[in-house]
Amino acid sequence: MREVGIGIAGFGVVGGGVMSILRRHAGDIEARLGARIVVRRVVVRDTEKPRAVDVDRALVTTRFEDLLEDPQVAVVVELIGGVDQAFELVRGAMERGKHVVTANKALLAARGDEIFKLARERGVDVYYEAAVCGGVPIIRTLREALASDRITALHGIVNGTTNFILTAMAEKGEPIEVALAEAQRLGYAETDPTLDVSGGDAAQKLCVLAQLAFGARLMPADVLTEGIMGLQPEDFRWAREFGYALKLLAVARRSSPGEEGGLDRLEARVHPAFIPAGSLLAGVRGAMNAVVLHSDALGPSMLYGQGAGAMPTGSAVVSDIIDLTRNILAESPGRVPLPPARPLVALRRHDEIRCAYYLRFGVKDTPGVLARIASQLASRRISIAAVQQHEQNDEGKPVPLVIVTHVAREADLRAAIAEIDRDPTTLAPTRLIRIESV
Amino acid sequence: MREVGIGIAGFGVVGGGVMSILRRHAGDIEARLGARIVVRRVVVRDTEKPRAVDVDRALVTTRFEDLLEDPQVAVVVELIGGVDQAFELVRGAMERGKHVVTANKALLAARGDEIFKLARERGVDVYYEAAVCGGVPIIRTLREALASDRITALHGIVNGTTNFILTAMAEKGEPIEVALAEAQRLGYAETDPTLDVSGGDAAQKLCVLAQLAFGARLMPADVLTEGIMGLQPEDFRWAREFGYALKLLAVARRSSPGEEGGLDRLEARVHPAFIPAGSLLAGVRGAMNAVVLHSDALGPSMLYGQGAGAMPTGSAVVSDIIDLTRNILAESPGRVPLPPARPLVALRRHDEIRCAYYLRFGVKDTPGVLARIASQLASRRISIAAVQQHEQNDEGKPVPLVIVTHVAREADLRAAIAEIDRDPTTLAPTRLIRIESV
Repeated sequence: MREVGIGIAGFGVVGGGVMSILRRHAGDIEARLGARIVVRRVVVRDTEKPRAVDVDRALVTTRFEDLLEDPQVAVVVELIGGVDQAFELVRGAMERGKHVVTANKALLAARGDEIFKLARERGVDVYYEAAVCGGVPIIRTLREALASDRITALHGIVNGTTNFILTAMAEKGEPIEVALAEAQRLGYAETDPTLDVSGGDAAQKLCVLAQLAFGARLMPADVLTEGIMGLQPEDFRWAREFGYALKLLAVARRSSPGEEGGLDRLEARVHPAFIPAGSLLAGVRGAMNAVVLHSDALGPSMLYGQGAGAMPTGSAVVSDIIDLTRNILAESPGRVPLPPARPLVALRRHDEIRCAYYLRFGVKDTPGVLARIASQLASRRISIAAVQQHEQNDEGKPVPLVIVTHVAREADLRAAIAEIDRDPTTLAPTRLIRIESV
Repeated sequence: MREVGIGIAGFGVVGGGVMSILRRHAGDIEARLGARIVVRRVVVRDTEKPRAVDVDRALVTTRFEDLLEDPQVAVVVELIGGVDQAFELVRGAMERGKHVVTANKALLAARGDEIFKLARERGVDVYYEAAVCGGVPIIRTLREALASDRITALHGIVNGTTNFILTAMAEKGEPIEVALAEAQRLGYAETDPTLDVSGGDAAQKLCVLAQLAFGARLMPADVLTEGIMGLQPEDFRWAREFGYALKLLAVARRSSPGEEGGLDRLEARVHPAFIPAGSLLAGVRGAMNAVVLHSDALGPSMLYGQGAGAMPTGSAVVSDIIDLTRNILAESPGRVPLPPARPLVALRRHDEIRCAYYLRFGVKDTPGVLARIASQLASRRISIAAVQQHEQNDEGKPVPLVIVTHVAREADLRAAIAEIDRDPTTLAPTRLIRIESV
């Protein structure tokens, strides 16, 4: 039986999952492939560290060179994380004609261009199903299944940590500090949760997805990014009252070109959003991930599954290894093209985004306040869809007043809020949550 | 630019969709492929019939031979439907070394074995993404993304017509005749809706899916199949009362081998089922389709989208054409293997299925009836999870009594029902709906 050799760099949680799956399903995989996948090298930082999954000591090394210079390694699996060292490893592999599998969204978001350019030059493949949404086959679907279609919008719950926290807040009414601590205790959130709760992780993933879905070329800094730490239990109560669920969404949406013509414009943003309570995305609970696509021919579609964890992420890595092995056996590397070398869409200015908005004001309980806010919104052509004011018995505290607007331009809305927040009857900064119909 | 020629046989709704997509997205497709897809032949039954999508008259023919004998046609797209004539066409194509795309689940369910055998012998590819769930990329996902994993269960809403009818019944409380007539009026159901409402269409699709997901070799007649025509508005009311939604499900589930050892056993069934009201599948409304998979590494995952219609189905056909074109350009046909030649699982006897059940009895309002039914169930080790009896003021009519059981063996349950239905205090046959936790 033919053999294809792989080398694994980084042997943490995902590496252990990859090794387990390759072992446990070896028979099935061989039957499907007509070939055997053999792990030739495993690079670790510390050879003495005890590991959940056993590895033959003879394969283990601490030197990337041992993997790069091994002629029996045809595929390098990068699982070390981070950007610079991972980039050097991936570049070294490609320069030696090896194919690459990576689960590293940070690397792809920051240096994907250089990687894909080099892959084109060297005629090697770079697969990265595990970089976004763990085991959910969103990369493969964008790259292959939807090759016949034109995607117009993408809405995703792509960060399991924040979805776990928001689900707990919605279902138990917990403040965010409590929900976050519970997520940390259960291993869903890191000790330093900043990358997740800031929306930064989701923004990295959105960059990777938008490149495949729209031919965009974005850096995480290009994405309008708002995290979840400002959300309060009352936002969830209001969401329910208006028939919404509250989720951290990654959104990319194509709009027709601006007046200057040329490329289509693409909105790219990550922020908490109200979505209809009856929508499928609203039913995505806990640490699960899902991506809804809208495309010309297919209409709406959704992929759903576990976005993290040793086995789900490991299964995505192994799918890529199998796919690359098929390419190697069929001598067809480059069969599915890499993302386009030049951007096919341009970023839409965040100011120009058009959304409906939920606005929560903290205002003094004096006559004329609602009239003033309504006229400040109206003067900027922001039209009101719904208003709710709850009674406030606690004298001196701000009155909770909530307004849901029709679709408005982000710049107009921000200007109106700035004006409202300058008024002496406004006691607390106005909170804004965008509303998406997914 | 290189060209790959295709021939389309059958130019109805889907054929028009395929042609529209190939035209509308020609630029995108060429950019992605580095090659042009050219329609060389279109076979129709009646060349004079007016069509929604224009075709160059020079391409149109009524003779399959014109397509089969055209050396410029590398891929034959079979959209004529039916079994025997479609089989002859597909065989003719493969014998001439042409690859095949088909949207024909009836053909695959009835004669898939012969087709895959011939494809193996001739070294050609057979792609059929459009045969199941229209544009939802379930075939590709089973064949490629989950190649690294071991699927344990599949639950699908794979028939849009029946899901449209059941959604209307659930949301409007309509009797099935009214919901069906509305579905016919809107074009979701055929004039003769038998294939859909009997579950037969879903059973065909389940055969195709089970082959890829489990290596099963099933004919539609092997599938335990119950349709929706016996459902009544009160079943939906009871579903709501117990916290369920009522859907027509296609289910395939792997269980460990029987005592005789050997192959794993596979349950294969299509029937109305109660599923938890909060589950994602319960949120699949109208004519939409969805498939939930459970697999070892990935855990639960779901794909969702439009299962029918010119453009969704057309987009799946065009994805297959693009994939085959990639194989042709990379000279790698057979890159993704066909389904296995021998079955990897054996059918589990329907008697041996284990489920929880909802039972609706129509019994006389006399003392001791509940006690008798409970003891008849208990004598067959069927344990009761919940009971509800509503008041019946209409004298002489059966009392509506509903029992939800814990998991029980189908054979035991059927024996108990047969005994209960023989009793003179039973006025109407007992209705049974299986309960699935998806």
